[in-house]
Amino acid sequence: MSSIPAPPNPRSSIAEERVNPSFPVRELTYWIDGGRRVTELKERIMLELERDPLWRVNDHPNLSLAETRERAMSKIRRLADLATSRPLEETMTRMSIISVVDPGFWTRFGVHFGLFFGALQGQATPSQMAYWMDKGALSMQGITGCFGMTELGHGSNVAGLETTATLDERTDEFVVHSPTLTATKWWIGGAAHTATHCAVYAQLIVKDQCYGTKTFVVQLRDTKTFALMPGVNVGDLGKKMGRDQIDNGWIRFTHVRIPRSHMLMKHTKVTRSGDVIEPPLAQLAYGALIQGRVSMVSDSANVAKRALTIATRYASVRRQFGGSASAGASETKLIDYPIHQYRLLPLMAQTFAMIFTAREVTANYEKLMGELSDLGDATGAAADDVIKNLKETHATSAGLKAFCTWMCLNIIDQCRQSLGGHGYSAYTGLAQAYSDFAVHCTWEGDNTILTLQCGRYLVATALDARKGLPLPENLSYLRGAVSATGGLSGHACKGDSAEQVSSLDTLKSAWSSVAANAILNAVRDFEAGLGKGLSKDDAYEFSSASRLHAARMHTYTYLLHRFAAQVDQSPAALRPVLTLLAQLFGAHSAVQHSGEFLQSGFYTGSQIETLKGFVSFACSEIRKDAVSLTDAFNYTDYVVNSPLGRFDGDVYEKYFELVTSLNPAKPVPYFDSLIRPLLERTDETETGPELEIDEE
Amino acid sequence: MSSIPAPPNPRSSIAEERVNPSFPVRELTYWIDGGRRVTELKERIMLELERDPLWRVNDHPNLSLAETRERAMSKIRRLADLATSRPLEETMTRMSIISVVDPGFWTRFGVHFGLFFGALQGQATPSQMAYWMDKGALSMQGITGCFGMTELGHGSNVAGLETTATLDERTDEFVVHSPTLTATKWWIGGAAHTATHCAVYAQLIVKDQCYGTKTFVVQLRDTKTFALMPGVNVGDLGKKMGRDQIDNGWIRFTHVRIPRSHMLMKHTKVTRSGDVIEPPLAQLAYGALIQGRVSMVSDSANVAKRALTIATRYASVRRQFGGSASAGASETKLIDYPIHQYRLLPLMAQTFAMIFTAREVTANYEKLMGELSDLGDATGAAADDVIKNLKETHATSAGLKAFCTWMCLNIIDQCRQSLGGHGYSAYTGLAQAYSDFAVHCTWEGDNTILTLQCGRYLVATALDARKGLPLPENLSYLRGAVSATGGLSGHACKGDSAEQVSSLDTLKSAWSSVAANAILNAVRDFEAGLGKGLSKDDAYEFSSASRLHAARMHTYTYLLHRFAAQVDQSPAALRPVLTLLAQLFGAHSAVQHSGEFLQSGFYTGSQIETLKGFVSFACSEIRKDAVSLTDAFNYTDYVVNSPLGRFDGDVYEKYFELVTSLNPAKPVPYFDSLIRPLLERTDETETGPELEIDEE
Repeated sequence: MSSIPAPPNPRSSIAEERVNPSFPVRELTYWIDGGRRVTELKERIMLELERDPLWRVNDHPNLSLAETRERAMSKIRRLADLATSRPLEETMTRMSIISVVDPGFWTRFGVHFGLFFGALQGQATPSQMAYWMDKGALSMQGITGCFGMTELGHGSNVAGLETTATLDERTDEFVVHSPTLTATKWWIGGAAHTATHCAVYAQLIVKDQCYGTKTFVVQLRDTKTFALMPGVNVGDLGKKMGRDQIDNGWIRFTHVRIPRSHMLMKHTKVTRSGDVIEPPLAQLAYGALIQGRVSMVSDSANVAKRALTIATRYASVRRQFGGSASAGASETKLIDYPIHQYRLLPLMAQTFAMIFTAREVTANYEKLMGELSDLGDATGAAADDVIKNLKETHATSAGLKAFCTWMCLNIIDQCRQSLGGHGYSAYTGLAQAYSDFAVHCTWEGDNTILTLQCGRYLVATALDARKGLPLPENLSYLRGAVSATGGLSGHACKGDSAEQVSSLDTLKSAWSSVAANAILNAVRDFEAGLGKGLSKDDAYEFSSASRLHAARMHTYTYLLHRFAAQVDQSPAALRPVLTLLAQLFGAHSAVQHSGEFLQSGFYTGSQIETLKGFVSFACSEIRKDAVSLTDAFNYTDYVVNSPLGRFDGDVYEKYFELVTSLNPAKPVPYFDSLIRPLLERTDETETGPELEIDEE
Repeated sequence: MSSIPAPPNPRSSIAEERVNPSFPVRELTYWIDGGRRVTELKERIMLELERDPLWRVNDHPNLSLAETRERAMSKIRRLADLATSRPLEETMTRMSIISVVDPGFWTRFGVHFGLFFGALQGQATPSQMAYWMDKGALSMQGITGCFGMTELGHGSNVAGLETTATLDERTDEFVVHSPTLTATKWWIGGAAHTATHCAVYAQLIVKDQCYGTKTFVVQLRDTKTFALMPGVNVGDLGKKMGRDQIDNGWIRFTHVRIPRSHMLMKHTKVTRSGDVIEPPLAQLAYGALIQGRVSMVSDSANVAKRALTIATRYASVRRQFGGSASAGASETKLIDYPIHQYRLLPLMAQTFAMIFTAREVTANYEKLMGELSDLGDATGAAADDVIKNLKETHATSAGLKAFCTWMCLNIIDQCRQSLGGHGYSAYTGLAQAYSDFAVHCTWEGDNTILTLQCGRYLVATALDARKGLPLPENLSYLRGAVSATGGLSGHACKGDSAEQVSSLDTLKSAWSSVAANAILNAVRDFEAGLGKGLSKDDAYEFSSASRLHAARMHTYTYLLHRFAAQVDQSPAALRPVLTLLAQLFGAHSAVQHSGEFLQSGFYTGSQIETLKGFVSFACSEIRKDAVSLTDAFNYTDYVVNSPLGRFDGDVYEKYFELVTSLNPAKPVPYFDSLIRPLLERTDETETGPELEIDEE
C-alpha cells in the first residue's frame, strides 16, 4: 500500500553524523575549555547541578512568577556556602555554567556577590571593608545586598542621578533623599524581596555644594524582621521580559539618615568637619567596568554554544520535503539543504570567534589588572604604557560587549526560527533564551552608547597617531592609513583565485583595511563637524553614525584577528577545521558588508562573487562536522535543556513526553461557564415592533 | 544650592513637538486609513473596546496562563454575534485593531472564523456548506472549529503528512488514523480547550491507493458534554513564546470513523462505490494562501505603527546627558541625538513603506480574486492573463510576507532596545509585542521557504523572458536586463549631487537595477547547477542563497515602487513629508546593501557616501515631524497600551502608577522559610577530628 512512511529513526539520523569527524572531538573540547582539567571541572559541576532536584530547569515555563522567585531564593543558600568555601576558579566556573542554565538566578546571585560586594571591594577603605566583612557582607550571614544605581528617570548618565546624600554636620550623618519621582531608584535587583542593604549612588552634598555621584551603604530592612527601615519605601517591579528569578524593585528614600562612615571613602573622603578630599585621577575605576564587559563576551559565547547545539542537532534529525519525488523515499534532513547550512553555519563560525576572543580578552584583562596593581601609585613611562593599554582595553571591550551581545541575540533568534514552529514552544528552550539574554544589550552600558564610546576612542587615537603618537598593538592596522590622504590604495587583494581571496591572511588584511577606512571616515566626519564650528562634543555627535560604524568594523576585525591567533596556536589536528571556521567567519562577515570592501578598494566585484562562492563551499564542508562541533561544546543534555537538542537525537519521543508530563490532561476549566452558553445560545437580535407610521 | 534638577515636565517636552508640524496631521491619518469614513469607524471601534472592562489589556503581564485563556474565551461570545451581524468591513476593521491590541485573542478567534470556516468555504461543496451552516459552523452556535494541518514531525511539507483517512467501503466511512508519534497533529489552535470539530488534513486512501492530502471534518468532542469522542486523544501544548490566549493542542486519532460525506469534496470527490474523481488543475487554491500573506503585510504595518509610536514619543520626553556641562542645564532629549534619529527614523520610513504597500496589495488581491471569480471555467488569452497575474501575486506576496514580517520583528526589537532598561519591563509593551509577533515569521509559510518560492518564480520568469515571453508589470525592470550578458551598464546614477543621487526617481531606478542584477545572478547560479549535471530541483537548491537574495532585492524594490506610487497620488499637502520618507526608505536600504549597488555599477563609492549624507539629512528633517507622524497613526492610548507611548507624554507618573497598582506592596512571602535561615545561619563546615597520625 502506498502510504506515507514515518520519518526514519531520529537516533540513527544523528548517529550517522558522528561516524567520521574530521577532527578529534575531545581534543577540541579541551582546546575550547582551556585544558582537560577545566573540562573535567565543568563536567563535575554539570553533574552536581543535574542531580540536585532544586536545580531542575525543564519545568521553568510552567512556574508562576511567585514560584520562580521562591525557587531561586531556595538555591541561594546552596550556593552561598560554596561560593565562600570553594576555590575562586571553581566558583567562577560554576557561575558561568549557571549563567547558561538559569540566567535569572545567576543575576540574582550576582547582584550580591558581583555588584554589592564588588562595590565594597572597589570603593570601601580597609577599615570599612573590615567592618562590612565582620557584618557578614561576603557570606550573606547577616547582610544581603543590592546595588542602587539607576533611577526611573536616569540610566546611562550616572552623573545625572537625582538622589542626594547631604551631610548633616550636627549629627555627623548623611541624609539620603529622593527629591522627585524620577529620582526613584528603579530596576534594583533584589530590592523587592531579598536585600537588607543597598549600595546607593547619590549626589554628595556638603555645605550646599554638590560633589557628584558617590556610593553610600543604606540599610533597607531590619535583618531580624525584614521590616522596612524608616523613610525607606520599596516596591516590586513585577513581570519582566525575562530573568524573572530576580526580584527587581524600586526604592524611594525620604530623609533617611545614615552614619557618615557609610559613605564608601576609598576615593573621595568626607571628614568629621565637612571637608571633602577628592582623589587624584581615578583610572582604576575603569577596571570594574571592563570586567563586566569581558564577562559578557564569555556569556555571549556560552549562550550561543547552547543555541547552536539545539539548532544543529535538530537540523540533523528533522526531515522535510524530498530530494526525489518517488513515493516512500525519506524526506531530506534540514541540514542537507544548502540554505539551512547557510542559515546556521556562519553562526557557528561567529560562536567560535566569540569563544576564542572571550578567552583571550579575559586573559589580557587579568594581566592588565595585575600590571595595574603592581604599578601602585608609580608614574612615568611604564605607567603611561599601562594607562594606554587600559584605555585601549576599555574601548575595545566596550565594542566587544556591544557587538558580541547583539551577535548572540541574533544567533539565538536565528536558531529559534530554524526550528520552525517548534521554536515557538516554551519547552524547546530558545524563546526563553532570547528573553533572558536580551537585557545584555542594555545593562552594563547600553550597546549603542558603548559603540559610540569605542568609536570616539578610535577617532581620538587616529588623530593622536596623526600627531605622531604611537598606536596600541590592536590598532596597528592604522599605521600608514592615518597619513594617507585618500583611501588605502596599497591594500588590495592580490589574486583572484578562491584560495587567494579567502585565505585567512587575506581576510585579516581585508578587515584591517576596511576598519582603517571606517575609522578615517569617522575622523573625516568629526573634522567636518569641527569645520562647521561645532564644539568637540557636538562634532562627535555629528559623526555618530560613522563612529558607530567604525566601532563595528574595528570589533569584527578584532574578533577575526583573535580567532586567527588562536587557530595558529591550536593543536595540529584541530587546525584544519578551525581554520575553515575562521575563514567562514571572516568571509561571511565580509560578504555581509561587501559595500565597505568595494569602497575601500580591497576587493573587486568579481572577488566578492568568489568570496560568496567560498562561503557556500565552507558551509558545505563544515556541514560534515556540524554535529561533532556541537559535541565538542560538551554541554550535557541537562545544560542544553531542550528536547530538540538532545545528544541522542531522540527528539520527538522526549519532546512529547516533556509536554504531556508538564501539561497533564484535565477537563476544560470553563466549559460550563463559557463554552456551553456560547454553543447553546440563540439569536437575540432585537428587531423592535413594527411602527404604524411605516405601514402606509 | 547646586544640586541636580529634575527633568523638565515631560508633558511640555512632548507638547513642544506638536507646535508646528510640516503637514496637516489629520489629513495624513485619512490618507493612511483610506479616507475619513474609515478613520471614524476605527475611532468608534477603539472607543468601544476601551470602554469594555473585558477588553482591559494593561494587566495582561500579571495574568497566569489559565487566566489568560479564560479571559480570551469570555471575549469570544462578545464578538461571535458581532461578527455575523455586522457588515464585513466593520468586522475586518475590528479584527485588524484587535490584532494589535490582543494578538493572541485575534488568533484564537481567527482559528474558527478564518481557518476552520475558511476551509469549509474553500473546500466544501454547496450541499456540504449548507449542512455545516445549518449546524452553526459560522456563528459558533453548536460548533466551534479548529484546523488540523501540521503534525509533530511535519510542518511546511503538507504533502508529507502522515495522518491517514482510509475509505471503508462496507460502512461508507472514512477511518481517520495517526499511525505514528510523528503523525500527531501539533500546534492545533483551539484543540486543547475550545473546539468541537476539526478540519483534518490527511492522506486520502481508497482501495489501497494514496491520493494525497485532503481535508476531513472530524468531531473531537461531544457538543453537550465536551467529552472527547471515541478514538480521539487531545492534549495541551501549554506555554508558548507568545499568544498564550490561544489554547494550542495536539490530537491523535486512533481509527476514528466519520461519514464519507465529511470529506470536503469541492475539488476531489469520492463516490459511494469508491471511485476517486480528481479535479483539473486547481489554481484557485492559491487564493487562500495569498490572502493570509497579504493580511500579514497589513499586520506588520499595524504592529510597526504601535512600536514606533511608543519609541518616538518616549524619545521626545526622555532626556539623557547634556549638550553643555553647565550645572542646572536640562539633559538632551534622546530624539535630538543624531544617532537616535538614525536608530528610529529609517524604521519609521519602513513602516510607511509597509502601510502603503499593504493597502495596494490588498486592493490588488481583491481585484484579482474578482477577476478570477468572473472568469469561472473560461480559458484562452484572458484566462492566461489572470493566471499569470495570479502567479506573480502569489510569488510577490510570498516575498512580501517574509520580508515584511522580518522587518516588523526587527522594528519591534529595535524600538524596544531604544527604550533602554524600561524596554525590558513587561508593562511597557514591546517585549510582549515581540514574543507575540515572532510566530508571523514561521506560520502561513516559513519565511525562508517563502523567500525561496519567490526566488524560484523570479528565476523562472527571467528564463521565460529570455525565451521571449512577456514580463508581468511588477517585473518590467527585467526588460533589457535579461538579454544583457554582463551587468547592466546602461543603468547608472547620472550626476553626483545629493539631489541627483537621492531623488525618488533615481532610487527607483537604482533598486530596479539591483534587483535585476540579483535575479540574473540567481539565474547564473541556477544554470551553473544545471551545468554540473544537477536536476532542476537540485539546481534550485544549489542556487538557494542567491535566490533568497534575489527575493530580498525584488521585495525591497517592490516596496519602494509601491510607496512611491502612493506618494504620487497623495494630497499635495502631504507630498513633501511622504516624499522624504520614501527617499529615506530607499536610500537607507540602499546604504544597508551598498555592496549590491557598487557591484551593479549603479552608484560609485563617492555617490554612496553622498547617499549616506542624505540619510543623515533626511533623519534630521523627519525628526521635526516625528511625533506628529506617530499622531497621524492615530492609535489611542488604549491601543498603544504603554505608559511610555502616551499621547500626553506623562510617562513617569503613569508608568509608576501602573507598576505599583499591578504589584501592590506585600510582605516578602518566603522571609521566614528561606531568608531568615540564610541570614542567621552559622558556618557548619566539617573539619573533622585531629588525627593522631598527623600529630608527629
